[in-house]
Amino acid sequence: MEFYQCDLRLLDHVAAVRDIALGAVGVVGATVVGEAFHHFSPQGVSGTVVIAESHLSVHTWPEARYVAVDIFTCGGLDPRPGLEYLYRQLRAGSCRMQEIVRGLPDDVEGEVLPSDVLVMSRLGEPVRFAD
Amino acid sequence: MEFYQCDLRLLDHVAAVRDIALGAVGVVGATVVGEAFHHFSPQGVSGTVVIAESHLSVHTWPEARYVAVDIFTCGGLDPRPGLEYLYRQLRAGSCRMQEIVRGLPDDVEGEVLPSDVLVMSRLGEPVRFAD
Repeated sequence: MEFYQCDLRLLDHVAAVRDIALGAVGVVGATVVGEAFHHFSPQGVSGTVVIAESHLSVHTWPEARYVAVDIFTCGGLDPRPGLEYLYRQLRAGSCRMQEIVRGLPDDVEGEVLPSDVLVMSRLGEPVRFAD
Repeated sequence: MEFYQCDLRLLDHVAAVRDIALGAVGVVGATVVGEAFHHFSPQGVSGTVVIAESHLSVHTWPEARYVAVDIFTCGGLDPRPGLEYLYRQLRAGSCRMQEIVRGLPDDVEGEVLPSDVLVMSRLGEPVRFAD
């Protein structure tokens, strides 16, 4: 997931980014088993949360008001509720999501098609989530 | 990256998986700034390494002799040398790599094409790396 035009004030604060990351873990119903967060100099935060269902990662580029998030899940856990949560918490102006199939050969042998990428909105177009 | 037919003895040992993950970080020339590893009951290891250039994650499924690794890099760091290192260290029988473009709209607006997925080998076909 890419989040654009995010609230600049959030992206350089490790505590704020960590709270949002852990909030997203909760929204998708995952269980935290480990975490690591780091603040970069002069700016930016990277963090990972190991969950029982795999992991979540977050990287912020305050200078670009851009945040990249991965939610890697297994066991039938749906990461998509995290998209809206993160979009709202980061006060993003637009976002983009790619869904990548991973796993054993029976799961991944097929070609990746353009339709595998769900573009929620493009820059400058506000996202409308279902009510 | 997906690694198949891996050495079963490695995949359930958190120290072994951590050593291999940190070795891959070294091979690609990245700098560690944080880490979190977890051993699951009854089996399996998940771990993440936060690097100055983003992150590496690893998840093992010993029951399937399968390991999933992500190397998320920025700043021009090439993750591909990690593929051969991981393939050899995990004693994998085959592997598969997908390269996913992330970033600002100018970087990601294009469609994802099947040619973006580099399939190094399929199950049962040993991988030949360049000498």
